[in-house]
Amino acid sequence: MFEFQIHHTEGLARAGTLTLPHGLVETPAFMPVGTHGVVRGLSPGDVRRTGAQIVLANTYHLHLRPGELVIQNMGGLHRFTTWQAPMLTDSGGFQVFSLEGLRSIGEEGVTFQSHIDGTTRMLSPERATEIQWQLGADVAMAFDHVVPGQSSCEAAVDGMERTLRWLDRCKTVHDRLADEQPARQTLWPIIQGGIHDELRGRSLGATLEQGPWTGIAIGGLSVGEAKPVMHRILEHLAPRLPPEVPHYLMGVGFPADLLEGISRGVDLFDCVAATRNGRHGTAWLPSGRINVKSAAMKGSLDPLDPSCDCETCTTYPRGYLRHLFAVEDILGLRLISIHNIRFLVRLGEQARAHILNGTFERWSREWLSYHYAGGD
Amino acid sequence: MFEFQIHHTEGLARAGTLTLPHGLVETPAFMPVGTHGVVRGLSPGDVRRTGAQIVLANTYHLHLRPGELVIQNMGGLHRFTTWQAPMLTDSGGFQVFSLEGLRSIGEEGVTFQSHIDGTTRMLSPERATEIQWQLGADVAMAFDHVVPGQSSCEAAVDGMERTLRWLDRCKTVHDRLADEQPARQTLWPIIQGGIHDELRGRSLGATLEQGPWTGIAIGGLSVGEAKPVMHRILEHLAPRLPPEVPHYLMGVGFPADLLEGISRGVDLFDCVAATRNGRHGTAWLPSGRINVKSAAMKGSLDPLDPSCDCETCTTYPRGYLRHLFAVEDILGLRLISIHNIRFLVRLGEQARAHILNGTFERWSREWLSYHYAGGD
Repeated sequence: MFEFQIHHTEGLARAGTLTLPHGLVETPAFMPVGTHGVVRGLSPGDVRRTGAQIVLANTYHLHLRPGELVIQNMGGLHRFTTWQAPMLTDSGGFQVFSLEGLRSIGEEGVTFQSHIDGTTRMLSPERATEIQWQLGADVAMAFDHVVPGQSSCEAAVDGMERTLRWLDRCKTVHDRLADEQPARQTLWPIIQGGIHDELRGRSLGATLEQGPWTGIAIGGLSVGEAKPVMHRILEHLAPRLPPEVPHYLMGVGFPADLLEGISRGVDLFDCVAATRNGRHGTAWLPSGRINVKSAAMKGSLDPLDPSCDCETCTTYPRGYLRHLFAVEDILGLRLISIHNIRFLVRLGEQARAHILNGTFERWSREWLSYHYAGGD
Repeated sequence: MFEFQIHHTEGLARAGTLTLPHGLVETPAFMPVGTHGVVRGLSPGDVRRTGAQIVLANTYHLHLRPGELVIQNMGGLHRFTTWQAPMLTDSGGFQVFSLEGLRSIGEEGVTFQSHIDGTTRMLSPERATEIQWQLGADVAMAFDHVVPGQSSCEAAVDGMERTLRWLDRCKTVHDRLADEQPARQTLWPIIQGGIHDELRGRSLGATLEQGPWTGIAIGGLSVGEAKPVMHRILEHLAPRLPPEVPHYLMGVGFPADLLEGISRGVDLFDCVAATRNGRHGTAWLPSGRINVKSAAMKGSLDPLDPSCDCETCTTYPRGYLRHLFAVEDILGLRLISIHNIRFLVRLGEQARAHILNGTFERWSREWLSYHYAGGD
């Protein structure tokens, strides 16, 4: 359980298979975000048909509604949501640190006000780990201290060092819980350190000392820093990451990010952009982006993306998709979200095939230059 | 084409099969309403999986957005929406007569202001018939003059007589259009006459004189009058309706209405309640109604309706359905709408089986008394 097998590499890019309690994940892979235990507007069947093999759910949101105890009493996230494949929960850290003005941070944890009912709550390394165990996803994430992308070096040091101290506390709780059911859930640590290579290196080194781990995540990127900075950090970390476990780049997942990340040794991605863009009618195409609401779509019998094999592109004409947004029918949001998720999942599948084939670098370079030319 | 075969009757209840250009409709049957060419929030695949064999679309709404010309140029409603089974369009009459204060009625037709952009528009028997031909549904409805349920006898006479004069104009246009493509679309007349038996009888008699027709609709019911009044009108009309064509009771379709209508000779129903209730979290059960948002649903692993075979009831626990409404995810609306539509479609299927079996009356009586006891 929690094994990761690498089949082939090309440069830093890797094609692998991750074995989790609820199934396999072929990497590189994009994970759709199921904020409230549902990928917005999509049924588990819709998500399965995009080819996604693992879904992320947010501990912060599920803690507030319906509460981890409700889910635990129903038999865990899988029975609650009916999603039968692997799941990963974040720790809630990212959400509570985003509650600017509604939270106070201490060494013990983060005290915050629920954005739903204003009640005062507390998340700590211990609570975040216990809640995730109760939720029962295949992979739990350590409770980390995220700092904004343009933070001072001091703030980055502070967040990074606290993340390490908290990791120790998460691990203690997780090890105790996993002692009786070792095949239920694994815990992955998160590398912090802002945009500072040296801090990132220290974070990684100290994290590995607390190991071994079955996977390792890179957090605190795509939080305001420039893309080249993110790429530099990834390049700094890549040769230092343990090659035998999956590398998960948290919260990152525009189409180009996937290929840029894969070429820098990343195996797993998640991002809400696929569904958020879908809700606004913005669809990704190999040539860039398109807005389904644009006048040019009216009356068109063309598929949204002729090169795509998703339910939306193989079924509906552009003119109907545009109409759904014009009359504000929720089917429109769903169909574009399905396309966008399939677009990212398929990009992972294509990258994997090219890595196995030794053609990733050339394909990726061509794909990116075509895509960037389209303005995304 | 447009044939209706009756396989068995029991009392006034009939089990039949209607043959339309895009397929068969086994009756009695509930038709989900696809207001804008989409059953709200549902994909054509969702609707197909409810077992629905025919969908209604609204001419008024499609005329405004995207416009009949756009749909015609795309190849008609079926290519536009990708729904491949039979469709029926209403004439727009019901909608424009509902635009109180925004429309003026004359012998020529109804001038009204679009509720979308305020532009002045005109629907007449000729335009409504032409537009429906352009939309290309299997069945078009005559443009009728609907009066409210509590209208005076004078108003009812006025609406009924105008409907007859307009029927003649609809038929003239339809016959001309159908002359070249007789198997494309049929036109059904609508019986008016308010809550007055004598007027209803006159409306029917004069309508039949303008025939023959391939189907006949009863309009202007369930518009504010009491249920027993509707039942009395149906009982008055039933022995007078031509038995060889389907009888369509327009805009009626709560669960009990289906069985009450079927026992009074009705073959087809449509109603927005299934999807409207679904959007508010109200689900129909054999025992009455239930609101998915209620506290009792929290944490429940039970199916919504254990006796139902729909996607929602065979897949999701009540606790998850409640959660979807709590977090306002649109998947909730979709899943309850799917259940409600399947509930009505299945009620039609069950009624049909019982009619074929000669057990309809007893089954219907028992079903209704159980259902009414539940408070719906």
